[in-house]
Amino acid sequence: MNNDSGWMAEAIALGDSARGRTAPNPNVGCIIVSPAGDIVGRGATAPGGRPHAEAVALDQAGAAANGATAFVTLEPCAHLSERGPACADLLIAAEPARVVVALDDPDPRTAGQGIARLRAAGIAVDIGIGADAASASLSGYFTRLRLGRPRITLKLALSIDGKIALPSGESKWITGEDARADAHRERARSDMIVVGRGTYLADAPRLDVRLPGLEDHSPRRALLTRGEAVDGWETLSSPQDVHRLHDVNDLLVEGGSATATAFLAEDLVDRILIYRAPILVGDGKSSFGYFGLDAIADAHGRWAATDSQSLGPDRREVYERVRSIRR
Amino acid sequence: MNNDSGWMAEAIALGDSARGRTAPNPNVGCIIVSPAGDIVGRGATAPGGRPHAEAVALDQAGAAANGATAFVTLEPCAHLSERGPACADLLIAAEPARVVVALDDPDPRTAGQGIARLRAAGIAVDIGIGADAASASLSGYFTRLRLGRPRITLKLALSIDGKIALPSGESKWITGEDARADAHRERARSDMIVVGRGTYLADAPRLDVRLPGLEDHSPRRALLTRGEAVDGWETLSSPQDVHRLHDVNDLLVEGGSATATAFLAEDLVDRILIYRAPILVGDGKSSFGYFGLDAIADAHGRWAATDSQSLGPDRREVYERVRSIRR
Repeated sequence: MNNDSGWMAEAIALGDSARGRTAPNPNVGCIIVSPAGDIVGRGATAPGGRPHAEAVALDQAGAAANGATAFVTLEPCAHLSERGPACADLLIAAEPARVVVALDDPDPRTAGQGIARLRAAGIAVDIGIGADAASASLSGYFTRLRLGRPRITLKLALSIDGKIALPSGESKWITGEDARADAHRERARSDMIVVGRGTYLADAPRLDVRLPGLEDHSPRRALLTRGEAVDGWETLSSPQDVHRLHDVNDLLVEGGSATATAFLAEDLVDRILIYRAPILVGDGKSSFGYFGLDAIADAHGRWAATDSQSLGPDRREVYERVRSIRR
Repeated sequence: MNNDSGWMAEAIALGDSARGRTAPNPNVGCIIVSPAGDIVGRGATAPGGRPHAEAVALDQAGAAANGATAFVTLEPCAHLSERGPACADLLIAAEPARVVVALDDPDPRTAGQGIARLRAAGIAVDIGIGADAASASLSGYFTRLRLGRPRITLKLALSIDGKIALPSGESKWITGEDARADAHRERARSDMIVVGRGTYLADAPRLDVRLPGLEDHSPRRALLTRGEAVDGWETLSSPQDVHRLHDVNDLLVEGGSATATAFLAEDLVDRILIYRAPILVGDGKSSFGYFGLDAIADAHGRWAATDSQSLGPDRREVYERVRSIRR
């Protein structure tokens, strides 16, 4: 028998599996649990954003939703759409005894109205269970609503001494298979990847997702260039163009050094994902050029290490922004 | 009540506390445990290498050593010296019931004779308890006996992107207080530190140990230079000069980049100790210059990450050599 936190963790995992394919909609997860403690319906936001997680789970549960508890990672939507009914209304019609919600939806079309409507229909609603984990899972969506741009992750494969390649440009391979497989999973969790022209010319055929079962998760591809567009690729003429991307929750910047430096210089990186190989390179290409740092003191307090784990011989290091550049 | 492994762990911790002050002697630890399970004597090799750990512990135990068990991290020495009697003889005279030894001493003056002499005197001897931990603790001494040079640790304080300073040379401070305190403990565990002339000129007054209670652990200081000697500092005219250092078990190379690169180019680094701050520097001074690497494939398999832990906001990363440069 599970408790509320345990059920919500399952709903979050379900929603997390949809990350990178639902934008501009959030990657929500929902499970319906019978009074006897059996899961009678599961749903995640479908690729493209519809149907919503609740609709999928309720459809699966059918009549078993009556009297059950629904666990959903984000407040059920309150707005009708051409693409489907409001989830709050679907839930009310299914007559669950209780709905447990991890987080309010800041989308102004919902923003509390989904929960209010459930309660007005006599359904008990609990809010806040699993809020931290749900918030992490939905961070791309929340960043887009809050800042009007995607959550931006900068990915790099580095040596101990922070090099991305030999002076010749040779960079295959800094990291091992486990790290590269993890990098593919990160791609699958992104709605779009961005590279510069150098990386495009060197690696274009490889910039997709090549993991068994994840082939259909390939994100959209964009080239950071002031030059000509390339067939099959979208174009960002500067990092600030991310503010145009209203249908991207999670953006992955893959390199190279000039592209990474441009995003850092514009203070447009929320998360740094390093795959660190236990090798020394010495003379070679550095991760970044000058992005505006003129004193060591100014470098501190901008990033916090939030994860560090082994991946075969390599290490995955995650740093998240804790403050913006002081200007 | 402790078991053999537990007692030996205490002896190893004791020996470890003497590391960096006993060369050319090994930093041994010894405890004497009564049949009732009380520690009646404790000893570590004294600063300067004499008296040995066994002599200190037996002196403390006095008559209580009779019938007790002695735990010692390295085979008791079998050779008389002007500076004291052989520990094997001291133990025989004290009449313990049993001696537990973690490791054989490869010193040709002992090399099995210490243990043989104990057994000939009717004392039970067990060998190999705690061998791995003792081996790590005594790795400087073993490296010196095996390779005719100290165990060499290269220490660096780096940003995420592997920089040691801004282009101006500004490097204070990359890391925080916890990391710097740990770096001081590493100094205290080293017999000698080496820096290049640039670091000497920038940091000379600081190259000592400044931790409460460890002031008397300051290692000898050496300058890597082809130029003039400096008062109070020994001189290494090249990294290969480490083969002259017959009285140094643990050598710490502190920088800067040219010195680190010179040691790497000569394949004279056994261990890399990184204090990694969660900062980005961008354009700045790299950790190393060209040290002979011409292909990424050749960089692999030389180092294994053996430790990674948080130190306040920073991270301590340790890499140990797993193979030498292929030439």
